[in-house]
Amino acid sequence: MARMQKVRLGMIGGGEGAFIGAVHRNAFGLDGQYDLVCGAFSRDPGNNESTADSLGVERSRTYASWEDMLDKESALPEQQRMQVVSIVTPNHLHVPISVAAIKAGFHVFCEKPAGVGLGEVKDLQDLLHSTDRLYGLAHTYLGYPMVWQARHMVQSGMLGNIRKVFVEYPQGWLSANEETHNKQAKWRTDPSLAGGSGCMGDIGTHAFGLAEFVLDDAITALCGQLYTHIDDRQLDDDGAALIKTKKGATGVLIASQVCAGEENALKIKVYGDKGGLEWHQMEPNSVVYRPIGQPYQVFRAGLGQPGLCDEAVNRCRIPGGHPEGYLEAMANLYNDFAKAVRGDSNHTSSKANGVPGIKSGLRGMAFIDAMLASSDSDTKWETVSPVGTE
Amino acid sequence: MARMQKVRLGMIGGGEGAFIGAVHRNAFGLDGQYDLVCGAFSRDPGNNESTADSLGVERSRTYASWEDMLDKESALPEQQRMQVVSIVTPNHLHVPISVAAIKAGFHVFCEKPAGVGLGEVKDLQDLLHSTDRLYGLAHTYLGYPMVWQARHMVQSGMLGNIRKVFVEYPQGWLSANEETHNKQAKWRTDPSLAGGSGCMGDIGTHAFGLAEFVLDDAITALCGQLYTHIDDRQLDDDGAALIKTKKGATGVLIASQVCAGEENALKIKVYGDKGGLEWHQMEPNSVVYRPIGQPYQVFRAGLGQPGLCDEAVNRCRIPGGHPEGYLEAMANLYNDFAKAVRGDSNHTSSKANGVPGIKSGLRGMAFIDAMLASSDSDTKWETVSPVGTE
Amino acid sequence: MARMQKVRLGMIGGGEGAFIGAVHRNAFGLDGQYDLVCGAFSRDPGNNESTADSLGVERSRTYASWEDMLDKESALPEQQRMQVVSIVTPNHLHVPISVAAIKAGFHVFCEKPAGVGLGEVKDLQDLLHSTDRLYGLAHTYLGYPMVWQARHMVQSGMLGNIRKVFVEYPQGWLSANEETHNKQAKWRTDPSLAGGSGCMGDIGTHAFGLAEFVLDDAITALCGQLYTHIDDRQLDDDGAALIKTKKGATGVLIASQVCAGEENALKIKVYGDKGGLEWHQMEPNSVVYRPIGQPYQVFRAGLGQPGLCDEAVNRCRIPGGHPEGYLEAMANLYNDFAKAVRGDSNHTSSKANGVPGIKSGLRGMAFIDAMLASSDSDTKWETVSPVGTE
Amino acid sequence: MARMQKVRLGMIGGGEGAFIGAVHRNAFGLDGQYDLVCGAFSRDPGNNESTADSLGVERSRTYASWEDMLDKESALPEQQRMQVVSIVTPNHLHVPISVAAIKAGFHVFCEKPAGVGLGEVKDLQDLLHSTDRLYGLAHTYLGYPMVWQARHMVQSGMLGNIRKVFVEYPQGWLSANEETHNKQAKWRTDPSLAGGSGCMGDIGTHAFGLAEFVLDDAITALCGQLYTHIDDRQLDDDGAALIKTKKGATGVLIASQVCAGEENALKIKVYGDKGGLEWHQMEPNSVVYRPIGQPYQVFRAGLGQPGLCDEAVNRCRIPGGHPEGYLEAMANLYNDFAKAVRGDSNHTSSKANGVPGIKSGLRGMAFIDAMLASSDSDTKWETVSPVGTE
Repeated sequence: MARMQKVRLGMIGGGEGAFIGAVHRNAFGLDGQYDLVCGAFSRDPGNNESTADSLGVERSRTYASWEDMLDKESALPEQQRMQVVSIVTPNHLHVPISVAAIKAGFHVFCEKPAGVGLGEVKDLQDLLHSTDRLYGLAHTYLGYPMVWQARHMVQSGMLGNIRKVFVEYPQGWLSANEETHNKQAKWRTDPSLAGGSGCMGDIGTHAFGLAEFVLDDAITALCGQLYTHIDDRQLDDDGAALIKTKKGATGVLIASQVCAGEENALKIKVYGDKGGLEWHQMEPNSVVYRPIGQPYQVFRAGLGQPGLCDEAVNRCRIPGGHPEGYLEAMANLYNDFAKAVRGDSNHTSSKANGVPGIKSGLRGMAFIDAMLASSDSDTKWETVSPVGTE
Repeated sequence: MARMQKVRLGMIGGGEGAFIGAVHRNAFGLDGQYDLVCGAFSRDPGNNESTADSLGVERSRTYASWEDMLDKESALPEQQRMQVVSIVTPNHLHVPISVAAIKAGFHVFCEKPAGVGLGEVKDLQDLLHSTDRLYGLAHTYLGYPMVWQARHMVQSGMLGNIRKVFVEYPQGWLSANEETHNKQAKWRTDPSLAGGSGCMGDIGTHAFGLAEFVLDDAITALCGQLYTHIDDRQLDDDGAALIKTKKGATGVLIASQVCAGEENALKIKVYGDKGGLEWHQMEPNSVVYRPIGQPYQVFRAGLGQPGLCDEAVNRCRIPGGHPEGYLEAMANLYNDFAKAVRGDSNHTSSKANGVPGIKSGLRGMAFIDAMLASSDSDTKWETVSPVGTE
Repeated sequence: MARMQKVRLGMIGGGEGAFIGAVHRNAFGLDGQYDLVCGAFSRDPGNNESTADSLGVERSRTYASWEDMLDKESALPEQQRMQVVSIVTPNHLHVPISVAAIKAGFHVFCEKPAGVGLGEVKDLQDLLHSTDRLYGLAHTYLGYPMVWQARHMVQSGMLGNIRKVFVEYPQGWLSANEETHNKQAKWRTDPSLAGGSGCMGDIGTHAFGLAEFVLDDAITALCGQLYTHIDDRQLDDDGAALIKTKKGATGVLIASQVCAGEENALKIKVYGDKGGLEWHQMEPNSVVYRPIGQPYQVFRAGLGQPGLCDEAVNRCRIPGGHPEGYLEAMANLYNDFAKAVRGDSNHTSSKANGVPGIKSGLRGMAFIDAMLASSDSDTKWETVSPVGTE
Repeated sequence: MARMQKVRLGMIGGGEGAFIGAVHRNAFGLDGQYDLVCGAFSRDPGNNESTADSLGVERSRTYASWEDMLDKESALPEQQRMQVVSIVTPNHLHVPISVAAIKAGFHVFCEKPAGVGLGEVKDLQDLLHSTDRLYGLAHTYLGYPMVWQARHMVQSGMLGNIRKVFVEYPQGWLSANEETHNKQAKWRTDPSLAGGSGCMGDIGTHAFGLAEFVLDDAITALCGQLYTHIDDRQLDDDGAALIKTKKGATGVLIASQVCAGEENALKIKVYGDKGGLEWHQMEPNSVVYRPIGQPYQVFRAGLGQPGLCDEAVNRCRIPGGHPEGYLEAMANLYNDFAKAVRGDSNHTSSKANGVPGIKSGLRGMAFIDAMLASSDSDTKWETVSPVGTE
């Protein structure tokens, strides 16, 4: 074996005050597979430079803009220049930067969503088809070992024929008007930065992607409604939909950012004709399995744990009982991406190989479009008689 | 204080092999407020008599039919004859027996649903308005102390203005074709006995009633879909709906009997602009309260427990940590009903006073009708683009 | 089958303001097996009469003293007089009343502990050996179905050879000086009424009895320490011990009434060389089973639930997911006792047959003596008398 | 602010097949504060080199022995040579390497325990007092934010005067004879490598250290017993002790590696005269707080979460609901250590400043000695030396 070469990574976005940039840095740092060699962290020069300093990035490779970064890094010798661009900007820049980076010859690992509209993401897909550059999308929850275990249970028939899926993603942090003072809230509720949907774009897409992944199935139709609860808020902060899948399952998808007091309570429940399963993001190291006619069982993450599929085991670092969490989940995506960059695997952008790619991005866009259309369309609300309420 | 006189009760239905009759007997026995003095437990003479024997009911007051029972009991001296009829038959008999019993001068405590159609239940309501006879409906979950506590939290403003409600009632016991061999499954899936809906009539009404009770609000519209998963099953076994309330909350209602492996997992979550709450029937002695800006709190049932409203305390028998359950919840309904029968309170059939009454029955009927209508109507299903799935 | 005859029961103690009397009344009422026909509820005439009134007991059979009750009931015709005396007084009266009742020809069902000293309980045992009267002891936790399931798992070898047992019973209600104003606290901390130990006598005996029952083994030695945390409190309110069993298991027993904020958190964990199990009284319908090399499993109480032994199923009334609790557990003891009284089974006082009897009483006394001796001594391991285990 | 310079770290131990070395690498990688510049990973040359290759360590700085590494690194220019030695060998080498490293001018971050005997650890302490080199000890659990929160609750009086502490650390992985085939089990049960205690040295010290840390108190006496359950196993695999603290609290400490089916279930419960708290390592992001007279509360880890002390917040990276785990806890220790190395804080080896140091090491040794003595003796209470508490 040759000596492992760390993958050289540059970051766009993620200056001080941002949230997800720091998460990505923890994630790619965890397993020692990456060197952060350059960045364009903020349009604000002071923020940009102090972020770079705090991260140990050299000033010579701290760039005033992402355009500048792509330009100058391209000019560096191959063994020195960055290999991967990590994009952690607001949503509206995801596609423009991805396109430019790929055209400049870099691999891209992008925070979700892939873009702010189906059209631009399709264009990105076309571009990817014409190159050998890699594209990864941070559907972080798909990095959890027990999400892979849940999918394995479905795929291997432990639940039988799937009938029902319930996925919910309640948060409470936008229960009041946060956008006047919270930077994260500000851009996430601004259509020019976040795209056409707020809550559904931000977290509904996670719920949707999780459901399709665990089910190994496509959601083909939905009947939903979006809501906005705060005066002057421009985008939805809450919504729900009845859903149907290609293979014939039905269910419900809920996403909300006004569920007061909830933290980040993504959950999925799946039921087939032989059993059910349940997974909660906030207790991510367990999958509850309920086979008909037996006591229910709890499969637990960790090295050496019984009953796990290879895909789950490969995403664990330590023995059971030593909890791994959200950062480890994202680190699993970055690790697989590093392997693909080094050519350790046959990962390509058109083939999901542990890392969600452009197809996941397209699915998210399709979901947002369908939710917006359904919510805007004529309702088929049925009146419940007021009898008994007088 | 005069010596407590036990309320004399007669039961219709509840022979050997039935489920809910035994539950009612446990419930009215628990607090020593009732004497079971007579019964028409089964149309099958052998079952009827052996049930009576096992319960210690005298043969002379064991009747071959409910018609016979109403008739003969009416003829007994006032101090001897039954005061309350407890109806635990299949649904289609609920109204006919209730009407006959009330006309014969008896109070009625009826297993839910009130009937099999809105029309007949309205007629029953009209009848009740014309008498002073009492009518109680076994919406058992409304007997739980912590359901009252949850309602109190909503009413007292601890959650602020209510925005969202999510109520779900997953069971798994009808995941396969049970109706060929399970008596309970058989009549519950037979439209001539159960009414026009299976799952929604059986447990959806519980979810609906719980939501309206906790919210102290009326669900005014819904958009839902019903499903039947077993070949030859004649009624729905699963469904879900988006819902809206009179006061402006929105949410989701789910009820299913094909959630493989689930026992009886009724749950409700409510969110307002100041906080949220959560209650699970399978762990009924806790209400989780999530006020914005504070650690979440768990209110616990039991005598001497902090933070409980009077309505909750009055429904507890023992100090916290000694779990009370489902039978105690139903016993709370029977207790309140006994007080009303004795005139200890101003309970009347037209005034919910701890015991759900005919109005709850009407609400359930209205819900079933709306679900059936919504499910049968033209859908507004929005297609999710297949993009990314190829 | 002959018509079931309710067992005629008289209660001593349990006047207004008492706790455990009401619990017993709920418990024997639940299944309709008993009629409360008489009582001596309180030495205070007013309390005695108002209690009788509220329970519907006739004045003619409401007695001023327990001596009077035994006397007068004995004189009644056999088909009328009480059959069972339920004793729910403070501890110091348990033996005197039990002895007198048995001599007068009544069966006895007594709140635990059996007495306040090993000597008097031995004398009671001798008396029981000379009669055919039945004696039941309210070790309520041994009425839980899942405690029987846990015992079954041990007995059937699902855990292999047992190595470890940890039992803990933390309560918080005596964290402050309650005895000045709380009647329950007052007598429980008074040596003349409660006996030589407070916490260990009151709840330590439950933990001890639970451990011996689940293990089907005897605790033979302990090394413990008792503490009293409140000024002027005369008895222990807290303690712990290392323990050893006859079959060679070791472990820890903890009981405390100063664990601030704890309700009634009795728990047991057992580990063998093939697996472990865990049961919590506050969530009594589950037993966690952890077989080596498999995902852990949760066995759930209820009719129709998978994996339960007969002894567990026989103690459930309703299907899984409808929680049964503490009152149901005690009701299970009363039910088995009623069967024995009627001669439905071969239950005798010298043979544990679903209801803990005098041997359980002796074990509790032996435990208290050993704890007091160990705590007072300099010796490390104090032998627990094998009395009651032969 | 100057550009952050990564701390240059060398690792001793942690070759392929080891467990804790990889954990340390995840931990120091997570926050990007360290560069792994050299290592002596294994005495086996093949393992050593392949480990180095897989980690990207240059062959020129991959050393055949730790002696060689200290020697050759000392000779490198100051800006190039390692600054910190991370020691992840079996226990018997901890002190020899620490001493040599400090004498060679390096800072030391050592896996626990500090050594295999109190004497050698005292000598190490003496050495540290004579230098300005830093010494950190990987008591990983003390890096969890909610452990700091628990300590804060105690220190700030939220529990009042502390009465009781119960700490337990059950594992199940040594329930059978693993030492014949499992490298981790092999050295941990070999006295020449692990020291005089197995389970107590390995995990009992964690339980002990956690209790002292949360209580901010010293355990002064214990009365305990050790057990060995597997034939031919040379060290204890299980034990428990009654404990007393300097400030007057009492309680129980349990540690076992034969609790079949348990993963890594370290828990602590503390009770004072105003309330109690509870923390579980396997659900590390919550502390349950039970104030007398109020519903119990759950404090949750994460940025922006209510009620957290600064020490807890400073150890969180992401908002509540995104679980952080065991690796993050150890990373918190490495981060604080990096700050101290850079002189960002006034951390010194003699002053606990976020990172457990040599005093924690001494406490662990004192605990092991007391447990061994108590278990071997006939005396009831064995004094725990106050060494390290001044």
